[in-house]
Amino acid sequence: MEYTISKSKDFVDQEVTLKGWMYNKRSSGKIAFLQLRDGSGYIQGVVEKATVSEESWQASQDLTIESSCIITGLLKEEPRSPTGFELQVKEVKAVNIAPEFPIGKKEHGPEFLFENRDLYLRAKTPWAVLRIRDQVFRSITNYFYEQGFVRFDTPVLQPTSAEDTSQLFEMDYYESKMYLTQSGQLYLEAGIMGLGKAYDFGPVFRAEKSKTRNHLSEFWMMDAEMAYHNQQMNEDVQEGLVKRIIKDCLENCKEELKVLERDTTVLQRAVDEKFIRMKQYDAKKLLEEQGFKVDYNDDMTTEEEIAIGNHFGIPVFIEDYPFEVKAFYMKNYVDERGMKRAINADLIAPEEAREIIGGSQREDDYEKLLTELKARNYKVEDYEWYLNIRKYGSVEHSGFGIGLERTVRWISGVHHIRETIPFPRTTVLSKP
Amino acid sequence: MEYTISKSKDFVDQEVTLKGWMYNKRSSGKIAFLQLRDGSGYIQGVVEKATVSEESWQASQDLTIESSCIITGLLKEEPRSPTGFELQVKEVKAVNIAPEFPIGKKEHGPEFLFENRDLYLRAKTPWAVLRIRDQVFRSITNYFYEQGFVRFDTPVLQPTSAEDTSQLFEMDYYESKMYLTQSGQLYLEAGIMGLGKAYDFGPVFRAEKSKTRNHLSEFWMMDAEMAYHNQQMNEDVQEGLVKRIIKDCLENCKEELKVLERDTTVLQRAVDEKFIRMKQYDAKKLLEEQGFKVDYNDDMTTEEEIAIGNHFGIPVFIEDYPFEVKAFYMKNYVDERGMKRAINADLIAPEEAREIIGGSQREDDYEKLLTELKARNYKVEDYEWYLNIRKYGSVEHSGFGIGLERTVRWISGVHHIRETIPFPRTTVLSKP
Repeated sequence: MEYTISKSKDFVDQEVTLKGWMYNKRSSGKIAFLQLRDGSGYIQGVVEKATVSEESWQASQDLTIESSCIITGLLKEEPRSPTGFELQVKEVKAVNIAPEFPIGKKEHGPEFLFENRDLYLRAKTPWAVLRIRDQVFRSITNYFYEQGFVRFDTPVLQPTSAEDTSQLFEMDYYESKMYLTQSGQLYLEAGIMGLGKAYDFGPVFRAEKSKTRNHLSEFWMMDAEMAYHNQQMNEDVQEGLVKRIIKDCLENCKEELKVLERDTTVLQRAVDEKFIRMKQYDAKKLLEEQGFKVDYNDDMTTEEEIAIGNHFGIPVFIEDYPFEVKAFYMKNYVDERGMKRAINADLIAPEEAREIIGGSQREDDYEKLLTELKARNYKVEDYEWYLNIRKYGSVEHSGFGIGLERTVRWISGVHHIRETIPFPRTTVLSKP
Repeated sequence: MEYTISKSKDFVDQEVTLKGWMYNKRSSGKIAFLQLRDGSGYIQGVVEKATVSEESWQASQDLTIESSCIITGLLKEEPRSPTGFELQVKEVKAVNIAPEFPIGKKEHGPEFLFENRDLYLRAKTPWAVLRIRDQVFRSITNYFYEQGFVRFDTPVLQPTSAEDTSQLFEMDYYESKMYLTQSGQLYLEAGIMGLGKAYDFGPVFRAEKSKTRNHLSEFWMMDAEMAYHNQQMNEDVQEGLVKRIIKDCLENCKEELKVLERDTTVLQRAVDEKFIRMKQYDAKKLLEEQGFKVDYNDDMTTEEEIAIGNHFGIPVFIEDYPFEVKAFYMKNYVDERGMKRAINADLIAPEEAREIIGGSQREDDYEKLLTELKARNYKVEDYEWYLNIRKYGSVEHSGFGIGLERTVRWISGVHHIRETIPFPRTTVLSKP
């Protein structure tokens, strides 16, 4: 087994070779403390002039911030070190000496860091956040596999648009037009007629002109769809998924969460306690009682989502929104007050994380779906294939979509959504 | 545990309820054989008029091809059945009776099936191929996780183009232009400076005007990149990955491979035997000896790739192509005949599967890379960030890309690449 910093506990008191970079240094005339990283983690290397060769000592003096280097030494447990280990260096080889690193030691505003994204990726915050992102991705993949779902990659290039056309990116495609996907859901509904349960997980696109810390123009979405599942079963699957993601992160990303100084109390509650399920009407009523001026007939506002999240401190399913503010494909009913309501739920996470999941039971009646398409002035011929799902062996079915970046942001506790993806795409163009 | 057909072995001699669809039927006046599917698998249900209620018998008669139904019965082992099990039906509930299914029993040409892709997805071939695709995806994810890689999603929307601009899709992005990704490699190279080893896995795009069975305009690519890895280490990782994928498929996709009538002899050889590694010069020489009229200075042609694949019967790394037919970022050297050669390899799979992986060691010298960019008339200012990778702590590094659909096609043994993705995108526009 080759040594990497992440495997240090298996190499205690052994001589190891670390291939990586130096990200910081303190040095006196006799001893140098090299802060080293290799991508898998961080460790301090201690070089004593008296015990290494002249070449190694000189190399330790030559190393600048972000220089690449190969360091051989004895790995020791060191309780005073934040990582628990230290390297007693025997040999230092400088691989490539870096000129002054532009984002080295100084404090920079977020704009500077994002304009130099390629260099900022070497810092500890993106290191930790992107490793959490990796864990979230694998938790989702593993959970769905264990639950009998099949991965079903829906196309990015779509000839028609599913929802709000004002946020669509359009492009020339040979002799015609295509739109970049906003969701793979409609395709997945066709997929489950063959596969039973399926999910996709890929980039989606919204021409989102507002510059907020919540929005990206390109982000990753996981959509899942299940035959013979009603909305309550749908929420059960979602709750299981979110609990699994957080549990895995708490177990496997301890060092990353420490780097981010994340207080994990609320995350642990989401693993341990049952999520709240409440109707949109009751949520609005609760907010009204708390002094909010609410519109019962509308979606939840940003402030309302934050307030609900803070009130409960664990994730809340807000169910059964007014149908007219929701998508055409949602199954719906008329409530006791005479209002048409979608059979749906958004999952609101606490700590200002807001909506991380949107889901619903889908209309499975051919005639009702056709009527709704016409009522909303959609081109029926574009949806003939989608209507086929209800024509040939229609079944009760439900699904949901989880936003990867919103979820990663919540778990990481970082402020801005652009921290959660390697090269964020916003209205502000950045190189690369 | 809820019953699904895939779990039949755990439910032998138990009463189970199957929620699915009927895909075929034979019936006499007294007994009906229902061919049932639920997305997880296939099973036959036997309905005897004498032992079920009148309603259940009537329902069994009413069911048409692709009707949805809920069937309760006793699960029995049945060695004569291709799946090993059979359902002695006690109750039949028709959920939704389908009108005549357009692609039911008749033989259709491939064009008809692809024009009705949403319905064709219910057939056995896409069922099997897409489940193999799911397995390949998970094998890749698991392998990289175990090898210490971090997933690093590179952007679809790129302000500059990496390689051949003639195949780029361009689009309007707010006030400027963007291009759809052809590869995430350059971004990954920046990523490994922070993460050590990283991979992406997402859709890539080529405006590929030629209509062949080998090309899609949108397909999935996995790119991996590794710091402190030379080309031979790179090939070791690739060989390990391909062996792992095939091994997992042979173990976990037995029923799918049976549905596809796949002879797995050659696949098993790829697991058991070491892959061939040979220089492009030697490959061309071998082909010349076999009667091919070869061009030593050019890439491998389609026919040459097929011939090499057939000759060895196991995957072959063709190494060190003439640099001038390869990308600017490849590390290179001058061979003993005075020709400049890339330090690279394409992996050619047998059985006409052709190139499934392309990889190389990357130029890690700042000056050499800058010179090459200028020699090829690239805009140096677009690559400033990419040059930074060589400026600040440059390290020897290598990487490769594996085409998901090409790999799935090889393992599945299907003829046309469009069988391997749910909704293929080619120059022929199809709905949806």
